[in-house]
Amino acid sequence: MQNHQAFIDAARDVIGHAHVLTSDLDMYAQDWRKKYFGRPLAVLRPASTAEVAALVRLCMVHAVAIVPQGGNTGLCGASVPDASGEQVVLNLGRLNGVRSVDPANNTMTVEAGCILQTLQETAESVDRLFPLSLGAEGSCQIGGNISTNAGGVQVLRYGNTRDLVLGLEVVLPSGEILDLLRGLRKDNTGYDLKQIFIGAEGTLGIITAATLKLFPAPKASAVAFAALSSPAQAVNLLQQMRAELGERFTAFELMSDASVDLIRRHFPASPNPFAARHSWYVLMEATDGGTDAALGGLFEGALERVLEQGLIEDVALASSKAQAGELWMMRENVAEAQQIDSPNIKHDISLPISSIPEFIDEVVGTLEQTYPGVRPIIFGHLGDGNLHFNMARPLALDNARWLEQTQAVNTIVHDAVVRHRGSISAEHGIGQLKQAEMAHYKSAAELLVMRAIKRAIDPQLLMNPGKVVDMGSKS
Amino acid sequence: MQNHQAFIDAARDVIGHAHVLTSDLDMYAQDWRKKYFGRPLAVLRPASTAEVAALVRLCMVHAVAIVPQGGNTGLCGASVPDASGEQVVLNLGRLNGVRSVDPANNTMTVEAGCILQTLQETAESVDRLFPLSLGAEGSCQIGGNISTNAGGVQVLRYGNTRDLVLGLEVVLPSGEILDLLRGLRKDNTGYDLKQIFIGAEGTLGIITAATLKLFPAPKASAVAFAALSSPAQAVNLLQQMRAELGERFTAFELMSDASVDLIRRHFPASPNPFAARHSWYVLMEATDGGTDAALGGLFEGALERVLEQGLIEDVALASSKAQAGELWMMRENVAEAQQIDSPNIKHDISLPISSIPEFIDEVVGTLEQTYPGVRPIIFGHLGDGNLHFNMARPLALDNARWLEQTQAVNTIVHDAVVRHRGSISAEHGIGQLKQAEMAHYKSAAELLVMRAIKRAIDPQLLMNPGKVVDMGSKS
Repeated sequence: MQNHQAFIDAARDVIGHAHVLTSDLDMYAQDWRKKYFGRPLAVLRPASTAEVAALVRLCMVHAVAIVPQGGNTGLCGASVPDASGEQVVLNLGRLNGVRSVDPANNTMTVEAGCILQTLQETAESVDRLFPLSLGAEGSCQIGGNISTNAGGVQVLRYGNTRDLVLGLEVVLPSGEILDLLRGLRKDNTGYDLKQIFIGAEGTLGIITAATLKLFPAPKASAVAFAALSSPAQAVNLLQQMRAELGERFTAFELMSDASVDLIRRHFPASPNPFAARHSWYVLMEATDGGTDAALGGLFEGALERVLEQGLIEDVALASSKAQAGELWMMRENVAEAQQIDSPNIKHDISLPISSIPEFIDEVVGTLEQTYPGVRPIIFGHLGDGNLHFNMARPLALDNARWLEQTQAVNTIVHDAVVRHRGSISAEHGIGQLKQAEMAHYKSAAELLVMRAIKRAIDPQLLMNPGKVVDMGSKS
Repeated sequence: MQNHQAFIDAARDVIGHAHVLTSDLDMYAQDWRKKYFGRPLAVLRPASTAEVAALVRLCMVHAVAIVPQGGNTGLCGASVPDASGEQVVLNLGRLNGVRSVDPANNTMTVEAGCILQTLQETAESVDRLFPLSLGAEGSCQIGGNISTNAGGVQVLRYGNTRDLVLGLEVVLPSGEILDLLRGLRKDNTGYDLKQIFIGAEGTLGIITAATLKLFPAPKASAVAFAALSSPAQAVNLLQQMRAELGERFTAFELMSDASVDLIRRHFPASPNPFAARHSWYVLMEATDGGTDAALGGLFEGALERVLEQGLIEDVALASSKAQAGELWMMRENVAEAQQIDSPNIKHDISLPISSIPEFIDEVVGTLEQTYPGVRPIIFGHLGDGNLHFNMARPLALDNARWLEQTQAVNTIVHDAVVRHRGSISAEHGIGQLKQAEMAHYKSAAELLVMRAIKRAIDPQLLMNPGKVVDMGSKS
């Protein structure tokens, strides 16, 4: 304890008394969904990269473990400390400046604590698009997005966060500042070090700033909602539409009938464009630099052809921004509809797109056999091979009994994912939630290389211990 | 020597007598341009990943250094052994199977020794595009392309090789096989290990296979050649054209008047669409999934607007595939024209696109002052910020006297590149050519992390020693 006090005093000397918090820590000690709880030794809120570096050096000297924290909106508990009372939370929220915006280079350099939505607006203000977009964009921070390699709804066209990062500034576990803030599309001078920090969930260092890619702002968009008989039809549809519209596609979202049914039950004002009920639905969006009329014509032509070819059962093309917004709202309400309805057993998986029809048939079959009446709330970014493969309880079971099956259902789903060479965490990461599962499914060689890198960069094992890769007993 | 014989005998036991070469090694001991020479202990030509793994284990036991080699077309000497006679060349040319092609997933899984052009054709055969394209495509191998993170002429739209790789199979320096062959667009399960092997030039392990991204095959293309007064105009033009045509742009190639003049002198049949001579030229290409007529109309409309706005001085739109081919041929003849003319002092640099006008003004000014009559043969992928910034001798100097200035000219150019936060090796890599220069320009922190990773993955320092990052005395 004496030691801790000395550490806290030293931290206060570095960043000021007001920014080293030791009481009322609840908002820093748990994630926004309140699924993970911890007990931090203190919460440090530096306002500059130099302050971060000084704090990290201090932590190393005092052998205090560091949990980097952004908006705390992650879904796997990576930004929550453990219960030991020995870990500090290093919250990046005050390090939130936009250092520069360079429209001619299509880049901006920003600090880790910037809110994602603010950065989208910064890009808009110079007639550019920063395409990262996800549910938590009003409160998540770009440092966290980069540390978890966030996905979202525009990956099909613009890639994951990794693809949007040209440069990084990182405070290493040694306290040294690694300046990789380059705004270059091509740079083959040695190992591309930024790649190891992206998606490392704060276990290799603290991302303090980034140079991000901007894109021409799209001027036109078109949205359609199609009804299909099977996931196989959806895969064919995706191919055909991409062949016609190329990289204009920004979204291709699959929804099972059970998920659409759930949305309509809890959001009765949701649009219902089809007379008949269908087994599967796809929400599609394309954007373009031209006019709405030109893009709409192209989109409509392609949809007519797939309807004639029997690739879809029915289709509705949004005829206004308002209609497009309603269709998107339906997709965005899935998560809340599940929340209201009953707790689902959830999976964030990805698969080779060609394997998805067989995977769904096989796994839904097994689950329906094992749990008669189970409701597959399957939806997600089919264009990226990413499904939120969630299972709502059979109505005959109560919530508690259903959640007791979590491990058993996870095993059925994840075993099948691995057989089909998919991923058990497509976009949410590992954090504390999936550390053991990752260790179970990865090869010994892969875990060995991860541990070798962790040890090489963070030899004291003080960066976000207990997250991502298990390094043994050190807490 | 006894030791060497034991090693060679053991290698022959593993892959057969015929595939362990110890004489007539010239084609493996030097690169295709014959700029780098070495003396290999032997050349090993395995035909399977298992054979590669067995050979690597053998090399580790015998402490024999390994130089991985693909098509040997690299420009920085990464695939050439040193002169010690102690290093083996591990040539991947026989490991050249296409393991699978999955058009519905838009992927193919191929072995390291596949020739790039063969893979372009494999993609075409299923109506897909594999967009990596560069001068050496008829002989370079995909393993080498990945190990050097090759660039080429379509980076603007499709990215560098790194962006085209979804999965990798790597034989680690331990001889273990690291199977990261996933065909997934999203996978956030721990550190993205493939990233450290891409662009590592064989210093961390041997890439034996990869899962690569395919794209919808474009159906339409449009090519134009524009005349401009300055690089600043070219940067404005790029912005304007991308705003109108979005991601349809596949190429935006800048050429200085001196480079076009050089081409015309040595290839007199080159097209000459403009009556007047201009200071700068840009070759542009857009592709699309629709019709040539629709894309041509869009392209022509955009060009008319930039002409009216005075963003260009003149423009010629290719009216046929043949005309488009002639314009491209001109761009592709730059390298050979330089070869015929006289040896240039060359630089493969990248810069933030917004800095390019100032950079060119400043550096050409300095060089013209220092070397009156110097001819700036500047051309390259402006859309990626990548310039081949080459200097042909002042006509008053002979070749030998000019080449004596290489180090001095390099220093002027590279110092300025670093001041403008650019890269001294945009797409060619480091190899043996730029190892010392990289060490000179990188920060201590960056070199430290590179060395830490090298040591963590290759503790015996036997993978392609003397390339990329200097590890000290070990050869």
